[in-house]
Amino acid sequence: MARYHLTRKDREICDPEIIDAILGGGRLAQVALCRGEEPYIVTMNYGYDPRRGALYFHCAKQGQKLDFMRENPRVCATIVRDLGYVEGRCEHKFQSLVLRGRLRTVETLEGKKHGLDILLNHQEKTPGRVRRRHLREDSVYSTLEMLRLDIEEITGKEA
Amino acid sequence: MARYHLTRKDREICDPEIIDAILGGGRLAQVALCRGEEPYIVTMNYGYDPRRGALYFHCAKQGQKLDFMRENPRVCATIVRDLGYVEGRCEHKFQSLVLRGRLRTVETLEGKKHGLDILLNHQEKTPGRVRRRHLREDSVYSTLEMLRLDIEEITGKEA
Repeated sequence: MARYHLTRKDREICDPEIIDAILGGGRLAQVALCRGEEPYIVTMNYGYDPRRGALYFHCAKQGQKLDFMRENPRVCATIVRDLGYVEGRCEHKFQSLVLRGRLRTVETLEGKKHGLDILLNHQEKTPGRVRRRHLREDSVYSTLEMLRLDIEEITGKEA
Repeated sequence: MARYHLTRKDREICDPEIIDAILGGGRLAQVALCRGEEPYIVTMNYGYDPRRGALYFHCAKQGQKLDFMRENPRVCATIVRDLGYVEGRCEHKFQSLVLRGRLRTVETLEGKKHGLDILLNHQEKTPGRVRRRHLREDSVYSTLEMLRLDIEEITGKEA
């Protein structure tokens, strides 16, 4: 499982329950990648797997994020819970998690099925319906790329 | 001004008005930085300066983002307009801009005043009130760090 790494003291979220609630309740993650001195950022839907300490994403078979990932699997991702703007104080309240880890493709059919299960259960109110409609045949999985971010460290901040 | 660089065709946002609306209407930006092979990500409130083609941020005088920026000013930022989840399709609708450019500190009093004006006008409904309350004395500016992201390229995507 992920270690919870603590840096700033006053605005830090240390409570594992709050961290888990943000991970479990979020929809979108921003993932930062880099190669050489070139940074890249991408926003994706994710599914959180608390047992494995990982996020799953699915995406197309090619694209910039895959090119970056193949050159350097180290990533830094963030999930933000937006708490709205505070008028008159020039302050926007939000909680954010910063996750450090490695991103890789999931290659086995078994692994892809697990990842898509995590993703559907995380995102969908009625995941069974989607499964019955779109995932009847195993051949479907060969057309989709599944990515897994193995979380090595989490920092939570309140701004 | 920023160039609008186009990559994917089917899901691309090319209309400068939509791009400007996302830039002008967003509250938070995620900024990816990197040094060596280490990526970093941070979420900040921003103010958009359309004349200059830049985003302004204010932050504390020290922190990881400043350390990364000093080693490598190249950044990749994103602003996301969340359009909500589409049940039954495992699909979350959002528009996102990916901005490439360079991040630097604003050092002059004049520059800091301009940046904070942009930020306040972007974020606040009644920026004058904040100005009267918090920004009467020029000495205030010496305590805050102002960052400017000079946008070199914008890509818009619809997911």
